Amino acid sequence: MASRMCDSVLVTGSNRGIGLELVRQLVDSPSSPLQIFAGCRDPNGPRAQELQELAQKHQDVITVVQLDTTSLASIADASKLVEAKLNGRGLNLIINNAGVNIPGSLAETGKREMVDVFTTNVVGPMLIAKNFHPLLCKAAAQFPHQTSMSSSRSAVVNVSTLLSSITRCPENFSISPMYPYRVSKAALNMLTCCLAEDFKKDGILVMSLHPGWVQTEMGGPQAPLATAESVSGMMKVITSLTEKDSGTLLDWEGKNIPW
Amino acid sequence: MASRMCDSVLVTGSNRGIGLELVRQLVDSPSSPLQIFAGCRDPNGPRAQELQELAQKHQDVITVVQLDTTSLASIADASKLVEAKLNGRGLNLIINNAGVNIPGSLAETGKREMVDVFTTNVVGPMLIAKNFHPLLCKAAAQFPHQTSMSSSRSAVVNVSTLLSSITRCPENFSISPMYPYRVSKAALNMLTCCLAEDFKKDGILVMSLHPGWVQTEMGGPQAPLATAESVSGMMKVITSLTEKDSGTLLDWEGKNIPW
Ligand SMILES: NC(=O)c1ccc[n+]([C@@H]2O[C@H](COP(=O)([O-])OP(=O)(O)OC[C@H]3O[C@@H](n4cnc5c(N)ncnc54)[C@H](OP(=O)(O)O)[C@@H]3O)[C@@H](O)[C@H]2O)c1
Ligand SMILES: NC(=O)c1ccc[n+]([C@@H]2O[C@H](COP(=O)([O-])OP(=O)(O)OC[C@H]3O[C@@H](n4cnc5c(N)ncnc54)[C@H](OP(=O)(O)O)[C@@H]3O)[C@@H](O)[C@H]2O)c1
Repeated sequence: MASRMCDSVLVTGSNRGIGLELVRQLVDSPSSPLQIFAGCRDPNGPRAQELQELAQKHQDVITVVQLDTTSLASIADASKLVEAKLNGRGLNLIINNAGVNIPGSLAETGKREMVDVFTTNVVGPMLIAKNFHPLLCKAAAQFPHQTSMSSSRSAVVNVSTLLSSITRCPENFSISPMYPYRVSKAALNMLTCCLAEDFKKDGILVMSLHPGWVQTEMGGPQAPLATAESVSGMMKVITSLTEKDSGTLLDWEGKNIPW
Repeated sequence: MASRMCDSVLVTGSNRGIGLELVRQLVDSPSSPLQIFAGCRDPNGPRAQELQELAQKHQDVITVVQLDTTSLASIADASKLVEAKLNGRGLNLIINNAGVNIPGSLAETGKREMVDVFTTNVVGPMLIAKNFHPLLCKAAAQFPHQTSMSSSRSAVVNVSTLLSSITRCPENFSISPMYPYRVSKAALNMLTCCLAEDFKKDGILVMSLHPGWVQTEMGGPQAPLATAESVSGMMKVITSLTEKDSGTLLDWEGKNIPW
């Protein structure tokens, strides 16, 4: 049997789209984690049914956690619950997947749009990283001191996008202007880099990951990648991460994207 | 006599620091603009006295404009006043200089800090660019159709920072963590790139400019550059901008900084 990819993982925004598929492939993997925390903003709502059914089937592994990534109270409650469930052990991996996009030409963009998208796509991952930092440290410390960084030890993966790349903006701006989204995801990449530097001393790897253009509610039906295909690529990339990948932006095939 | 650097310019946050020095050097230049709009959040407050005295001395050139860059109402009023003063002509140059920084380790950073700094440093420049876009277009259109882009024709300069560079973050993070500031200025760079693509068709140049580390309230007394030195470099860079500089990040000496 393959060695476990990690003991424990938290996925935010896991009730649909890429997040749900991540939980599905994590639990179905031959190297499945012992504990999967499936963050979800409204666990009892109609949009969480598929996730609840999956969790029901794998009660020993999946814990659905109420988690609105823009609410400090919700994050604090979630981290307490996760800590209790981990029973003294650390949390190995966080996938900050929850995200939003809205129509985004300049004409469509005002202060509210900019701040709302920034709050979900950047402040959320920042608050999650900050609040779960002690649990990530604990996970890293459970490995011998000189062990190099990896997602099986302790890592934060921020789900970013090709549209976060300022370098690539001239090539793809006209196809999808998306001011609030692009601006927020470039900001997320800077957060990734800051956290990577900050958490290096703790042995925690931090990186940004572009899932490709994927058939979800956000990606739309015309997207070239099926969710399963994107997520299986993401899983390969995540499990292969090493020290040198901390503070970088990779795509679902492991290719580097310039800032 | 040197040809005028441009007919009209708006500088935001011009009551102190780099903004005040920009207005001073603009009005003192042998190629001074005909009209300088000096944006200032509280024109009648004690912190605007130096600017008011300068404006008094150059009543024919400097107009102090009430301009809180985070208030849509203030921006709308300012753009109406500027439009009236321009009397049918366009506005050639906007320098989005107003900005804030706050202590910024992860422990010091919460939702409010992230959103407040983002609002001033990113949403402000976005709202200014959007609301003054018609006046910038008018300025660009006053030049023959095939004229290439420049700051004398029509341009937006977003005052950014070396700390906005994700590429450089690993080198300088530990000296100055500044999560909200770094994240906001990386986001500002993406805004620059989006606006550069969007406004290209109108003949409007958009770029990010790093003033160096400067002795102001923000930069502190230990900064290596005097404000006058930084601003005279910025002025040279701004007046030399050409088409190829649109969508880039340059420093006060004209050197390119990677995203
Ligand atoms: N699809 C693509 O082509 C594509 C491309 C590049 C990057 N991405 C990124 O991939 C990630 C997932 O996208 P997706 O395509 O799966 O999008 P999606 O189908 O729209 O799903 C978004 C998920 O995020 C959750 N979410 C949003 N705001 C939240 C909050 N405040 N708290 C908790 N959960 C929240 C949603 O929960 P609710 O059901 O409660 O709304 C939902 O589970 C995002 O970060 C996105 O930017 C997607
Ligand atoms: N100094 C440096 O070393 C350095 C380095 C890199 C980049 N920068 C950038 O350079 C720019 C100017 O910085 P500085 O050093 O001159 O800073 P400063 O001395 O702190 O001055 C900041 C200016 O911005 C104004 N401002 C802030 N929020 C505003 C708002 N909502 N509406 C209108 N005006 C507002 C302030 O007005 P009030 O007086 O009303 O507060 C003040 O005039 C900033 O964008 C900064 O990020 C500075």
